Amino acid sequence: MSEKPMFERLALIGLGLVGASIAHVARRENLAGHIAGCAATETTRARAFQLGFVDSVKADAAEAAADADLVILCSPVGTFAPIAQTIAPTLKAGAILSDVGSVKESVIRDIQPHVPSGVHFVPGHPVAGTEHSGPDAGFAELFEERWCILTPPEGTDADAIERLSDFWRRAGSRVEIMAASHHDLVLAITSHIPHLIAYNIVGTAADLEAVTESEVIKYAAGGFRDFTRIAASDPVMWRDVFLSNQDAVLDVLGRFSEDLAALQRAIRWGDGEALQKLFERTRAIRREIIDAGQA
Amino acid sequence: MSEKPMFERLALIGLGLVGASIAHVARRENLAGHIAGCAATETTRARAFQLGFVDSVKADAAEAAADADLVILCSPVGTFAPIAQTIAPTLKAGAILSDVGSVKESVIRDIQPHVPSGVHFVPGHPVAGTEHSGPDAGFAELFEERWCILTPPEGTDADAIERLSDFWRRAGSRVEIMAASHHDLVLAITSHIPHLIAYNIVGTAADLEAVTESEVIKYAAGGFRDFTRIAASDPVMWRDVFLSNQDAVLDVLGRFSEDLAALQRAIRWGDGEALQKLFERTRAIRREIIDAGQA
Repeated sequence: MSEKPMFERLALIGLGLVGASIAHVARRENLAGHIAGCAATETTRARAFQLGFVDSVKADAAEAAADADLVILCSPVGTFAPIAQTIAPTLKAGAILSDVGSVKESVIRDIQPHVPSGVHFVPGHPVAGTEHSGPDAGFAELFEERWCILTPPEGTDADAIERLSDFWRRAGSRVEIMAASHHDLVLAITSHIPHLIAYNIVGTAADLEAVTESEVIKYAAGGFRDFTRIAASDPVMWRDVFLSNQDAVLDVLGRFSEDLAALQRAIRWGDGEALQKLFERTRAIRREIIDAGQA
Repeated sequence: MSEKPMFERLALIGLGLVGASIAHVARRENLAGHIAGCAATETTRARAFQLGFVDSVKADAAEAAADADLVILCSPVGTFAPIAQTIAPTLKAGAILSDVGSVKESVIRDIQPHVPSGVHFVPGHPVAGTEHSGPDAGFAELFEERWCILTPPEGTDADAIERLSDFWRRAGSRVEIMAASHHDLVLAITSHIPHLIAYNIVGTAADLEAVTESEVIKYAAGGFRDFTRIAASDPVMWRDVFLSNQDAVLDVLGRFSEDLAALQRAIRWGDGEALQKLFERTRAIRREIIDAGQA
């Protein structure tokens, strides 16, 4: 490959599903000359190196981030504040600092105070994932046709935003820019609450005294299995998401419960018309998602 | 094919996803010499005939069921009482009458009074489906490796139960026999409540004033899209399920809401440990479903 890579040195702090996938696509698309990885555990570091998607791997985030032109935090959002503090002194002037966290207001609150002047902080969130986690789960196609949302605080360098947008576009994504608070509300309904109720129903099922766990598993094909897939997502990552997006999650959850109470009442009173009307409406939304290529 | 078919004449009352799939697999496995279909609308009748999975098709259920050795009701459960009443006079002595309804206690209550003596009523439920409906949605592999639950009332002819079990096994299913009331509780948690909360969250999302419908659709890949798939299931079929399995659905829904309130409280009070504990537990259940071949 004779063409110059997009960034000379890319640092990925966290080498799970998303970090590993970024590394794979960065290699394939020549987005980085050197990919430096950082992972908290020796197991992940060894595995990442063995899989070959990083050129170097460190236990210390500051070492991995030193001299990088683009640093992306890919660990659970609860780790961002201490990591930002650790890497701040080694960040190169002109470097772009970004992340892939599923929450954006709290991430800005946690990272922003540590960002040295001359470093461009552009928070990001690729809306893509699977229920698998760890370095083995990564693959270069994860971001294809998916949206990546950037939520740069006011005053962020326009050129840095454009370069990061270009990075994500070359990774296969479509890029959208919005306010962090709006991101958090949109994601609460499209991602956080779906995960929460999936986790919840799997717990409810496991606790039923009159139905054995083996029965729940045997008859999962009736609809339940789709929820268990989502409820298999990384526990620590999701714990951090709910704790970090408390306000929006509680707001949307309140509406969900209110609507569910109305449905419950319709069932109790045998109001078939109300049920059918909702079910027909939701079917139409599915068709729009298929048409939009997000199914 | 020179071998004798399992049943000489099979009548399918209802030619949507499940009825059409039974016809396809019955053809492939030589389970019936003649497949008589019945559908309420002219469109479905014409389409079924055109697709070729029935040998004859009638608007009148009694005509389709006349002389059949096995009659399976495949329409929404709310239609079963009038259909049973209509076909009763034409049912052949020794015939097996079955159904594929997702609820069993109410179905027995609706059908049993009309069953003539000498006809064997064996209620059934193949736990299999997709979000698609109509005659075009059918395919022969729908039941493969899925469970079919039979809920014969006490005193049902053992030979009839065995013959119907064999029919489903030859269609690719594994067969389980249980009490109707237990079936309704097991399916409430593994199928009915998952559908209800999927329908509900899609409605909640569509009603949010601060998030546009196009945003919900764009960012559906974050988890929401899996719910929209389930919430695209047939509206009339599901309306009937909820109205027919009221007690078990309301019971399990109460538990679900209780558990969700506890999660809501954990988020409000920042109890990360409680969240993580649940999320780890649900992940283990996913693994068991994969191991059981039901993923």
